[in-house]
Amino acid sequence: MTRDEARALDDADPLAAMRDRFALPSDVIYLDGNSLGPLTHASRAAVADCAERQWGDRLIRSWNEGWIDAPVRLGAKLAPLLGAAAHEVIVGDTTSANLFKALVAALRLDPARRVVVSELGNFPTDLHIAEGAVACVPGAELRAVPRADLEAALGDDTAVLMLTHVHYKTAERFDLGPWTARAHAAGALMLWDLSHSVGAVPLALDDAHADLAVGCTYKYLNGGPGAPAFLYVADRWQHRLESPLSGWMGHAEPFAFTDRYRPAPGMKRWLVGTPPMLSMAALEPALDLWAEVDQAAVASKGAALFDILLAAGEAASLPCITPTDPAARGSHISFRHPHAYALAQALIERGVIGDFRDPDILRFGLTPLYLSHEDAWRAGELLRQTVAAEPWLGPRFATRLAVT
Amino acid sequence: MTRDEARALDDADPLAAMRDRFALPSDVIYLDGNSLGPLTHASRAAVADCAERQWGDRLIRSWNEGWIDAPVRLGAKLAPLLGAAAHEVIVGDTTSANLFKALVAALRLDPARRVVVSELGNFPTDLHIAEGAVACVPGAELRAVPRADLEAALGDDTAVLMLTHVHYKTAERFDLGPWTARAHAAGALMLWDLSHSVGAVPLALDDAHADLAVGCTYKYLNGGPGAPAFLYVADRWQHRLESPLSGWMGHAEPFAFTDRYRPAPGMKRWLVGTPPMLSMAALEPALDLWAEVDQAAVASKGAALFDILLAAGEAASLPCITPTDPAARGSHISFRHPHAYALAQALIERGVIGDFRDPDILRFGLTPLYLSHEDAWRAGELLRQTVAAEPWLGPRFATRLAVT
Repeated sequence: MTRDEARALDDADPLAAMRDRFALPSDVIYLDGNSLGPLTHASRAAVADCAERQWGDRLIRSWNEGWIDAPVRLGAKLAPLLGAAAHEVIVGDTTSANLFKALVAALRLDPARRVVVSELGNFPTDLHIAEGAVACVPGAELRAVPRADLEAALGDDTAVLMLTHVHYKTAERFDLGPWTARAHAAGALMLWDLSHSVGAVPLALDDAHADLAVGCTYKYLNGGPGAPAFLYVADRWQHRLESPLSGWMGHAEPFAFTDRYRPAPGMKRWLVGTPPMLSMAALEPALDLWAEVDQAAVASKGAALFDILLAAGEAASLPCITPTDPAARGSHISFRHPHAYALAQALIERGVIGDFRDPDILRFGLTPLYLSHEDAWRAGELLRQTVAAEPWLGPRFATRLAVT
Repeated sequence: MTRDEARALDDADPLAAMRDRFALPSDVIYLDGNSLGPLTHASRAAVADCAERQWGDRLIRSWNEGWIDAPVRLGAKLAPLLGAAAHEVIVGDTTSANLFKALVAALRLDPARRVVVSELGNFPTDLHIAEGAVACVPGAELRAVPRADLEAALGDDTAVLMLTHVHYKTAERFDLGPWTARAHAAGALMLWDLSHSVGAVPLALDDAHADLAVGCTYKYLNGGPGAPAFLYVADRWQHRLESPLSGWMGHAEPFAFTDRYRPAPGMKRWLVGTPPMLSMAALEPALDLWAEVDQAAVASKGAALFDILLAAGEAASLPCITPTDPAARGSHISFRHPHAYALAQALIERGVIGDFRDPDILRFGLTPLYLSHEDAWRAGELLRQTVAAEPWLGPRFATRLAVT
């Protein structure tokens, strides 16, 4: 593809106008929206309003003027992106904390089923939190196996199959419906981690009969650094599952100030403590943006951006570890390179922000709301040139930063 | 006291200049800083910088430019207010989540000690979370008793005594050292909830040999709505206690992305998921403010503000349920009134923001950093007038809001 061909695609792009909603720096091609989505102008305004008017002027009164309902309100706004009903989603805490709540609740349903099945190489916090969750339920254990052994690992001892829908390294995507059906066939619940899926690929949790899901809002949803996460509990489970983190915000009557815990009906029982409102404020308009977005256009543009980067990687002789079938992947592309860390740093110096994942993965997020085809073409060209200049990747890129 | 006498106290007030650091509305006397502290100009600027420069311009790079260390850095800034060493405090999650972590960890230390002792009428989330925590440890139970029975409730089955240092309704204060010693005499750990203490009264956790403490930062510390909470673990326990919420941010090497959880050394092991950075950003300068504050001046001004409100309450024949001995209380004053809810609402209409607590408590926070003696005098005068006009408290104040 030539630059002119990329520009022609941009001219016909129905999502092109969305770029203006984002406050991206002009000297950067941002291919890390799968790690931290960028700031929207609306989120910037919402944060300022939350600080100055809601907190500064309205003070404590703001709890009655929108804050207290924010977890439920934001959950309802997120629900369409998950293929869920509005009352099945709540926003709050971290993905890790929500995983813990969901896992412990699922493990307590049936004393004969005390195994969490998951995948080795899953995003670490999923496995780490599962270790913590099984330690809270007598007899429970975590069975983490390679992907090829997952189905065989399910059995009549399985409480829950916990999978990350889109893999954070390779972008490989599980087929949501069939894997949910496999869990159910074994008598287990299905818990999806959608951190790398929501806003990246179409989701239909209700149609797939999924039971539980969690995910983060600071990647493709552009909610801001450490934005509150979400939890989905299918309607049919809402009165049967209870949170082990039985904090006052999940009480049926939090302001009755009673000694005994009594879980709220519906999704509110999954709340724990007071939500971080400035971070919630940033997230809300970022969710609102999606009401204007055609998901089919996102999917088709995402595939076009992928193809541009894939061609650049091929030109640079970089092996791609992401499936080339759009239906089998999320919305990032990953290459292997023996000096992937140094390469990522060198690209950042040239204005292309992607990221590195241990040990040798160079990862680029493909985010159709704010990346143009020309952006992808330029990034690909810089990738090709940088790899070609490899001897130039000298010792100053040898020190790893804490987060890349 | 007359208005002129109050003004004379203000003229001699060494804390008077601190008022200018706060963005308080001019038409309000804010006596609810014990529920939500007000915005400082520095926090407003920090939030804008976090949104616009750190998130908007620096994007993912900000994780390496201050974000990743924020929980530890803010913990170190908070430590002096707790009488703790910098490495004993971490900022993150909610008070409720931190209580859960601390309680489960303490309950796992010794199989012969599986009882959490606490007080009936404690702030609800403490008891609710304790219910959740004991359900995660086989054989564990919560023993909640009236204050008078606390000492007798301690025994050789007690893992931890969990007390809220300053009571959220009455402001009654436990004596930190002697109660910690009582827990230790029974062989139990001492866990303090300092939500209504920190920034309100001097604290000396290390001197008292406390083991664990939690608390919130959005009250007297002015960290912002739902600002991240804190956790204190005494140095001697740091390598012996582990968090049940074993999320990736608490891993020894979070970016090595390993399958098995291995807790970080020191306080980082208590981290769970990605922290909400906009809310962290607001908190940091609010903590910095305290480095300029003389704690003795805060205590003595707090006592003077208390006396002004107490006199007004007496003039209005309102029974005060807060101890009149400054050493026996926190920094709020509570009165009983059969129509306390309507009275609180009527005062808000007159520009005096205090709050109501079920069933009949009218509560005023006394915050020497931004309240003048004249503010207290005016609030007292409006309280007296409003009570005198009681028939005027009509049906439009009968509907309770969700949060007051």
